[in-house]
Amino acid sequence: MAPAKTQPARGMRDFLPADVRRREYVIRFIKEVYERYGFAPLETPAVENIETLMGKYGEEGNQLIFKILKRGVHEGTGEADLALRYDLTVPLARVVAEYRDQLPKFFKRYQIQPVWRADRPARGRFREFYQCDVDVLGSQSMVVEAELIAAASEVLARLGFSDFVIRLNDRRVLSGLLQAAGIPLAQHDPTIVALDKLDKIGVAGVAEELRAKEIGPAVADEVLGRFSRLKEANDNRRILEQLQGFVATAEAQQAIGDLQRIVSYSGTRAERIRIEPSLARGLSYYTGAIFEIAVPDLTGSLGGGGRYDNLVGMFLGQPVPACGFSLGLERIIVVMTEREMFPPDFVSSPAQVMVTIWNEDSIGDSIALAQELRGSGLRVDLYPDADKLGKQFKYAAALGVPLVAVVGDDERARGEVALKDMRSGEQRSVRRESAPEAIRSALKD
Amino acid sequence: MAPAKTQPARGMRDFLPADVRRREYVIRFIKEVYERYGFAPLETPAVENIETLMGKYGEEGNQLIFKILKRGVHEGTGEADLALRYDLTVPLARVVAEYRDQLPKFFKRYQIQPVWRADRPARGRFREFYQCDVDVLGSQSMVVEAELIAAASEVLARLGFSDFVIRLNDRRVLSGLLQAAGIPLAQHDPTIVALDKLDKIGVAGVAEELRAKEIGPAVADEVLGRFSRLKEANDNRRILEQLQGFVATAEAQQAIGDLQRIVSYSGTRAERIRIEPSLARGLSYYTGAIFEIAVPDLTGSLGGGGRYDNLVGMFLGQPVPACGFSLGLERIIVVMTEREMFPPDFVSSPAQVMVTIWNEDSIGDSIALAQELRGSGLRVDLYPDADKLGKQFKYAAALGVPLVAVVGDDERARGEVALKDMRSGEQRSVRRESAPEAIRSALKD
Repeated sequence: MAPAKTQPARGMRDFLPADVRRREYVIRFIKEVYERYGFAPLETPAVENIETLMGKYGEEGNQLIFKILKRGVHEGTGEADLALRYDLTVPLARVVAEYRDQLPKFFKRYQIQPVWRADRPARGRFREFYQCDVDVLGSQSMVVEAELIAAASEVLARLGFSDFVIRLNDRRVLSGLLQAAGIPLAQHDPTIVALDKLDKIGVAGVAEELRAKEIGPAVADEVLGRFSRLKEANDNRRILEQLQGFVATAEAQQAIGDLQRIVSYSGTRAERIRIEPSLARGLSYYTGAIFEIAVPDLTGSLGGGGRYDNLVGMFLGQPVPACGFSLGLERIIVVMTEREMFPPDFVSSPAQVMVTIWNEDSIGDSIALAQELRGSGLRVDLYPDADKLGKQFKYAAALGVPLVAVVGDDERARGEVALKDMRSGEQRSVRRESAPEAIRSALKD
Repeated sequence: MAPAKTQPARGMRDFLPADVRRREYVIRFIKEVYERYGFAPLETPAVENIETLMGKYGEEGNQLIFKILKRGVHEGTGEADLALRYDLTVPLARVVAEYRDQLPKFFKRYQIQPVWRADRPARGRFREFYQCDVDVLGSQSMVVEAELIAAASEVLARLGFSDFVIRLNDRRVLSGLLQAAGIPLAQHDPTIVALDKLDKIGVAGVAEELRAKEIGPAVADEVLGRFSRLKEANDNRRILEQLQGFVATAEAQQAIGDLQRIVSYSGTRAERIRIEPSLARGLSYYTGAIFEIAVPDLTGSLGGGGRYDNLVGMFLGQPVPACGFSLGLERIIVVMTEREMFPPDFVSSPAQVMVTIWNEDSIGDSIALAQELRGSGLRVDLYPDADKLGKQFKYAAALGVPLVAVVGDDERARGEVALKDMRSGEQRSVRRESAPEAIRSALKD
């Protein structure tokens, strides 16, 4: 028999202690900031009824949903009645309908849980990954957009990012722009795809793409001219002024007002906001403002979101105003790892000190010392066997524990503890009752 | 069309904010204590290759594993290639084999993650539930057992439990006892099942059960006599002495020595330990010490574990000494909820204060106040609309936010903030710059 495979399933990851610590470090900041903005945590099951998910993510999405066989005899028929959570938005919509009588008028929730997609795994694309969603339901005020942008910015700033930009646009402005330039509605989507490459392939390149999409040269010129001028404006106030001249519909004018409000509500944080009239974001469910956070060394974004007033009410049978932001936990961790933004002391053991065992007879004494140190609040590992001391030191070094405590016969007779600093190799004896304090002070070195 | 079902899938649960807080409260203590004992966190994927799980939990287990359809065209054939994690022990065994070169000699890990079982849901039995496992791999020392018992006890003590008992036994002692009394090996399991009911149905009841299992009356008398005498002993030292007289094999005598060591290593914490010679615990993989934590008002245990030296090496192809403890998170939460052991301030909003919006013109000012208060470390909600003030107060009350801050025209002119205490109804004005301090002091009331 071939030896059993021991890798995790394809596209999935094991997180060893140092990995977990990195993830928890980021998640702790996210939670702390979101709580400070008044968001409350929600958790939903990993598994949903299959009909809750099917048909909610388009045809491609249907295929990427992991389906679970109905239990018992049905396993033979291949009948699936359950499925793995595909995102955190559809479960939110279900929760809003199910608990409508218990939830506050404005439901501000964050949710940090894994989702699963039967995607082809690739570098940075996993079949199990975390989403960190924060949404405000029930309000149409632009205060919500401003608060979401502020909270996401604060998370990144507190994690140590100083070079991020918040790209901001509104779906209705983008539609209004294309419409005013003469692009028929059916060609909005391919036009947006082409315009999105303006930075990469330049005006001539985009012009060629638009031609390939059978957009007349005059219209293409008109669109490109407007977007190029907007790009040159390079200042939120001036871009908004230009936009007002570029769009005709009341809806688009209202949207420009909304963008103005978001910028104004953001106060000094508006410095980070850059209105980008070509920003579209992929999902078709956005109905208003859209935004994403970008850093120079990452293609794509560290997170993004927007207003989607027609989605969350899908199970409720009535529209629910909604605006949300999703932070890309996996991407944030990738960039922070590459930039070495994590604290350097993520070692595999959490222990600050390891207590050794001198001999069989003194095991009880070593345990007592470990418990005393723990009682003082220290994180303490205890070597389990009366091995040779050298072996015990070697183990502590391999684990990255900074201090080792030894209670040999001499130390015990004198009421002392020998403390070895594994970083410097220095060893000294301290009174047993002052050991916690000595350890604490050595840890600060 | 019938309205879509919006309940969670059968046997699964949504956790609204107050539920999440209860769970996080317990998990925080568990993590904190385990880290203090030198355990490091591990996380594995929810989904495993199906062959990793099948055959590891017996025939009944095979049927309770949720199986996931192979993606793409295979969905039609009903072929499953993945499955949902069923426990945290098999993934640990896989991890130990996969990363053997990276893991320390003694691998001390905790893992707090959900598992899924296609069980028939019942009161307190869910299809998705958390396991909190802590295991030490690589050592045969009874220091490990003592540390695991100490850590689990400390978790419960810190959560506020004061009436728990640690029931302790050793599989080898139990076998030795049955063997010495003349029970043939094939009848050990049914005998244990019968003996386990001694408390409930008494000596006569157990005698009848043993008869029904075709155990001869002389042997049944012998077994019952010994277990009754052990029960009467009611003191760890005396029980251990009696056991020494009751068992014959060297293995059982060694096991009694191990029990003695565990009690001795536990120091003053041994007060909570009660050696129970009839304790068997269900799982057949235990090879040495077994233990569980019981409270008077719960049938079953709040957690348990033991030594299982032959299991974790299943993928490695060589035995790995192992001992673990699993805390029953769901049960702990049930008992703590029934006993009202949670702090009373678990409300749906995390906010300590809500900032109102006076009118459209002053929105920016309200946002600025909210940001100032957040900057001082407070958790702050911001009402999103310029609604009537009464409506805003009502909302804060419904959410359970204790304080509300108002910046009306008068307050703004005077550089003040009006603070309303929602608990007492009192309202007073404070200088804007001293608002954080005033709020902090009001929160202490």
